[in-house]
Amino acid sequence: MENLSVRGAKIVSQTDLLEQALGMFLQDPYDQQCNPQGFVNVGVTENKVCFDLLKERLTRPDMNYLDSSLLGYNNLAGIRSLREEAARFLTDYCRSPVPLNPNNIIIMNGCSSILCALSAVICNPGDGFLTPTPYYSRIALYTGAYSGLQPVYVPLNSQVTENNGHPFELTMQKLEEGMEKGKQKGIRVTALILTNPQNPLGEVYPLHLIKECLEFASRYKLHVILDEIYMLSVMDTEFTSVLSFHDLPDPERTHFIWGLSKDFGMNGLRIGILYTENKHVVNSMSRMATFHQCSGPTQHMAYQFLQDRDWLENVFFPTNKELLRNSQTTLVTGLEELRIPVIHRSTGMYVWADFRKFLPSQTFEGEMELWQRFISEKLCITPGKTFECCEPGWFRLTTSLPDHILQVCLEKLKKVLQCGPQLNITSNSK
Amino acid sequence: MENLSVRGAKIVSQTDLLEQALGMFLQDPYDQQCNPQGFVNVGVTENKVCFDLLKERLTRPDMNYLDSSLLGYNNLAGIRSLREEAARFLTDYCRSPVPLNPNNIIIMNGCSSILCALSAVICNPGDGFLTPTPYYSRIALYTGAYSGLQPVYVPLNSQVTENNGHPFELTMQKLEEGMEKGKQKGIRVTALILTNPQNPLGEVYPLHLIKECLEFASRYKLHVILDEIYMLSVMDTEFTSVLSFHDLPDPERTHFIWGLSKDFGMNGLRIGILYTENKHVVNSMSRMATFHQCSGPTQHMAYQFLQDRDWLENVFFPTNKELLRNSQTTLVTGLEELRIPVIHRSTGMYVWADFRKFLPSQTFEGEMELWQRFISEKLCITPGKTFECCEPGWFRLTTSLPDHILQVCLEKLKKVLQCGPQLNITSNSK
Repeated sequence: MENLSVRGAKIVSQTDLLEQALGMFLQDPYDQQCNPQGFVNVGVTENKVCFDLLKERLTRPDMNYLDSSLLGYNNLAGIRSLREEAARFLTDYCRSPVPLNPNNIIIMNGCSSILCALSAVICNPGDGFLTPTPYYSRIALYTGAYSGLQPVYVPLNSQVTENNGHPFELTMQKLEEGMEKGKQKGIRVTALILTNPQNPLGEVYPLHLIKECLEFASRYKLHVILDEIYMLSVMDTEFTSVLSFHDLPDPERTHFIWGLSKDFGMNGLRIGILYTENKHVVNSMSRMATFHQCSGPTQHMAYQFLQDRDWLENVFFPTNKELLRNSQTTLVTGLEELRIPVIHRSTGMYVWADFRKFLPSQTFEGEMELWQRFISEKLCITPGKTFECCEPGWFRLTTSLPDHILQVCLEKLKKVLQCGPQLNITSNSK
Repeated sequence: MENLSVRGAKIVSQTDLLEQALGMFLQDPYDQQCNPQGFVNVGVTENKVCFDLLKERLTRPDMNYLDSSLLGYNNLAGIRSLREEAARFLTDYCRSPVPLNPNNIIIMNGCSSILCALSAVICNPGDGFLTPTPYYSRIALYTGAYSGLQPVYVPLNSQVTENNGHPFELTMQKLEEGMEKGKQKGIRVTALILTNPQNPLGEVYPLHLIKECLEFASRYKLHVILDEIYMLSVMDTEFTSVLSFHDLPDPERTHFIWGLSKDFGMNGLRIGILYTENKHVVNSMSRMATFHQCSGPTQHMAYQFLQDRDWLENVFFPTNKELLRNSQTTLVTGLEELRIPVIHRSTGMYVWADFRKFLPSQTFEGEMELWQRFISEKLCITPGKTFECCEPGWFRLTTSLPDHILQVCLEKLKKVLQCGPQLNITSNSK
């Protein structure tokens, strides 16, 4: 690592399994026709069921537009038309009691950038953020690489007990314990980061729980970052956005994040959206946007897309929901046949599945061993360790993929689970 | 600034004149037809002479393309096709003695992002970068906001003396003095940042000077960042890219930056390119690209654009050069009529002009007073103080604007300079 700074060397050394798997996939991607022996990636959440639909819409003539302002310098926080449209869109889909203000919106090139910049402007280096685990652990990279935050985990587990009404239940008592842990470690906790719907659990937080979390944060003067990136992919469950609250306990410290990457299968467009009522945060984020700007033509594309409510309501959402449901059914049914249960089926993009009975040992070494066998079979699903899960044996599988890919995934799973030495062990121990 | 972190509060407080002027312009932009009383911005360098040409090319059917990989997660360092095309393009236009390697290329959303991430991975917080002034001072923001670098200035001035062969001459002796100054201040200087063609001076560094700078840096084990963002807008002068060198003194610490923003008038696309032979830098920058990704469709657009050599060579470059030359002639002739000399006419996008005789006093207060009078007249040109020039009275004016805008600029300049009380003073003192 000669010639690198301390943080340069650190960031190179921190590659995680998700990235490694994505790298393997990009080098040798499975394709039904062209590369049927390729790598099957069921570990990264991308909505791939609607690509044809999206392509048709995104290549219409209204998308192929350019004016001088889109090609030149523009508002760092996002072009006006997109911020106005995003405000209208979120007002409706998050059921805001009042019209949201476009001046409270910051557009950046993805929610990873928003978390990066937001953590820099609201927290000091060394500060801690509280978060229940398992969680989307790249948040630690997003808030750590530049901003120097450190995570303080609130570990949830699957055992149902007096204090754990359902598997991986989040309670205020556990958050309190997290604060206490931070204190003991000498970490000044200044933020609470929640993903709702929860990733990887797939749990949709009920209204009362969100309220309790907001009140908890308010008591400790924590900033709350609500990452609702999967909110429009929720199925059969009432979803409550933080933007729907009439009276937030601490609006100046409450920040909402959403983007087009997941719900619209547009990871590649790099459009992330922050909504916050804190004017200082808006101003500082506008300046940080210097480093996180989106392409002008792509912002125009996002604007055109969000404003076509007729197409979204009558074509995209109904088709997408049906396809997501079918895909989920395919994968979950297949998992059930392999005797792998999943918990929560409310998010249409991934499930959290219990592979514990297939572990060679109930340890993270055992989990990694199983993962490596999937990888040898050119299949990536994501082990719980990647999400900082405190209990080995859980994996997240993406469901929002074309049926033939899920079928190949199931075949590969079957092959690994039935041929491995651990099948007898787990059958006996069952 | 309640609720902001220390750096959050700092970044809000640091807005500079360029940003303020851009803000005023965006709120009330001059338009010949729709808003002839609007704000005229000759302070930000954008190539606006070729917009119609670019629009025609960028809205052709080959640009309106989408595939699953562009809409999904892709290589963080940039899509393969664009990195390969950029390598071919730079090999040719920078006259590299060997074909450049696409694996040494990182694509980010603008050169501001590249400077931000690069400074993070090669320098530690508190480290200094050496740079001659006047310079494009937003580099201090780019390398400071997240990465915590501090500038160490090598001030150049206009007096021709024994040690200053021409106005604002850069010499190794001055760089040595800069290193000494850093040492005295207790700053560990670890990088040298040069812009070639120089911004705002418009000077194109001769081969021997670049070589001397590289050898100087090598002696002190400094990383050298060569920002060559204006390289294709050079007129009537031989331009030497750092990528044309056969034997760099320290290739592992030599980093080249270029992008589409200036030479192709595409600030809004946010495409910046890094070329470095240092594999560790490539690897760490690939990860930092998490926060600085470009939109997939926009990367495809950039790829299609760069690979259309026939159109570039036969349509764009000849037309662009002619239009840049005409615009420069319009502005410089008008300035001469106002008795305002410029130095260097080699970059087709801006000139560095001597307004000293119009200052109410030969101080930066005098410079600011004159600038405020231009602003009152709804004209922005950029004062030398913004570039950390050590000598008051110099302004940078953008030349790459449509003729009618430059005419309005000249009328406004005339009005301010001839109506002001300082005209008599300067006429007398002349």
